[in-house]
Amino acid sequence: VSGLDRGAVVAAAGRLAGLVHRTPVLRSDALDAIAGARLWLKCENLQRIGAFKARGALHAVGRLDPEARARGVITYSSGNHAQAVALAARHHGVAADIAMPEDAPAVKVAAVRALGARIVFAGRTSPERRRAALDIQARTGGVIVEPFDDADIIAGQGTATLELLEQVAEAGTALDAILVPVGGGGLVAGACLAAEGTGAAVIAVEPVGCDALHRSLAAGALVDVEPGPTLADGLKPTRIGELPFAVIRPRIAGSVVVDDGDIGRALVHLLLAAKVLAEPSGAAALSAALRGALPGSPRHVGVIVSGGNVAPELVSELLQKYAEHRGDA
Amino acid sequence: VSGLDRGAVVAAAGRLAGLVHRTPVLRSDALDAIAGARLWLKCENLQRIGAFKARGALHAVGRLDPEARARGVITYSSGNHAQAVALAARHHGVAADIAMPEDAPAVKVAAVRALGARIVFAGRTSPERRRAALDIQARTGGVIVEPFDDADIIAGQGTATLELLEQVAEAGTALDAILVPVGGGGLVAGACLAAEGTGAAVIAVEPVGCDALHRSLAAGALVDVEPGPTLADGLKPTRIGELPFAVIRPRIAGSVVVDDGDIGRALVHLLLAAKVLAEPSGAAALSAALRGALPGSPRHVGVIVSGGNVAPELVSELLQKYAEHRGDA
Repeated sequence: VSGLDRGAVVAAAGRLAGLVHRTPVLRSDALDAIAGARLWLKCENLQRIGAFKARGALHAVGRLDPEARARGVITYSSGNHAQAVALAARHHGVAADIAMPEDAPAVKVAAVRALGARIVFAGRTSPERRRAALDIQARTGGVIVEPFDDADIIAGQGTATLELLEQVAEAGTALDAILVPVGGGGLVAGACLAAEGTGAAVIAVEPVGCDALHRSLAAGALVDVEPGPTLADGLKPTRIGELPFAVIRPRIAGSVVVDDGDIGRALVHLLLAAKVLAEPSGAAALSAALRGALPGSPRHVGVIVSGGNVAPELVSELLQKYAEHRGDA
Repeated sequence: VSGLDRGAVVAAAGRLAGLVHRTPVLRSDALDAIAGARLWLKCENLQRIGAFKARGALHAVGRLDPEARARGVITYSSGNHAQAVALAARHHGVAADIAMPEDAPAVKVAAVRALGARIVFAGRTSPERRRAALDIQARTGGVIVEPFDDADIIAGQGTATLELLEQVAEAGTALDAILVPVGGGGLVAGACLAAEGTGAAVIAVEPVGCDALHRSLAAGALVDVEPGPTLADGLKPTRIGELPFAVIRPRIAGSVVVDDGDIGRALVHLLLAAKVLAEPSGAAALSAALRGALPGSPRHVGVIVSGGNVAPELVSELLQKYAEHRGDA
């Protein structure tokens, strides 16, 4: 893809300096013992708005010219991208309209509203939300900030992996592999760009039944999925984005699929051993490491913990279900 | 106290470089909004063994001469100090005997054992454990690593505050106050030394009914307490250590008392807004900030989150009790 390379991620990191947290990379002997590898946990659950999505949105909105900014931004999301665009709009002094599902959790609606965005409730499915966003655009001429199928979003999300590589290098080590969760493919596309030429193999992680990338790589072309039920509500795309797929396909080293048991156990292990809270989507990449048997048997493994916005009831439920299996020390 | 000054903490930090994590300092807009101040959370729950105690133990055991090391180390603890001494002994290649209560949670016993220490079970009270430690010492001639009443322990614990001050300075700011939880006084004594001359006021935080420091400061001399029930099981001393009190008394700026409701709410807010897990003792200092009305109305407030080792059942229970009060965004 023309112009979308490692340099684009490095440029995005420069533009984002001071706007996003340089999130910590945590280590845990207890998790290493389970994984049989040395894990480097890039904690984007400790990022602004609790997820890596702040990176792409702040980058993409920041790249708009004054004329586009005057017309405002629009997006559609049931999750972290909504909060990320609201944050980016507030930071850059731009109006934001956000289409959210009618059944969005009150806490997510309140968070977007607290960031100053206008909310339009639109059905319960992603196509309904997208239609609502297009309706707003027809009226305002605003710019739609896509959740993943956009070069500035991909470059912005890639900065998480770029930082991880830098932080591991500062610790005197190099990564053999990086595990990245996949929704629409923006984060993993950015990771592929950031890791290019470093020797770190990027491995995609998807929930079983929502493995749009896994199937598309096998088919050699984009494949639609009807996402099955999963704890990882942020990893349920019907299709990988075209631009992300064009970036990922020639660069990805492998792809693995995990189930709800893997994810729930990983969330609980991460909480009790490493003391940080991930949402299920954010624990998915770790779950692949803890299950072991990664392609290529990497020794030093980067893990993107992508977000931490989770309902307290679910945390409580998962603790009750999986805490007896914990291996912290 | 002769020789126990800021320089002793700086020297300890040099000796501990590479042995302990330089734990991250986290920020949360949501917590700031509740506190009415800018909070800088020093996350010692992300330290090795999940608590700041690793600092003092690694420092004190590392300072022993070869002859003392050959005789081994001994300690008595029901909590994080046991794991810290076991870790330090393993690191420095020294044998460790640790007196723990008969009713110690299995997970804590397993953690100490996994670090290679020998365990002696001794009654259920601190005096019984101390007697068991003295019995071992009579037999082996080993060195007792005190939990707080020791200059090397105090200097080691002070390195947490020293790092916090450095990390906030790197962010271009200076702290007005630092909130520190108090058990036997080792951590807060180290904080007083580290903060000396920086302009940051050290404020002690204790659970109601366990306020040995608060009462001793009021009396102008060490006062014994019969600790009442508290969620914060790490903050239940019967008395502040003599050496810590001598350090604290002329340097402390203030002292506040918090209750179980404050602590439980702070633990849940920290988990849901900042995405990190503290044990109740580790959330105590934050609870004072979230309650507001701190002495001197500081604007930039450092908070020592001292540890994160907590039973999963309690986390689940506190989430069910307090999660509706959360203010994350």
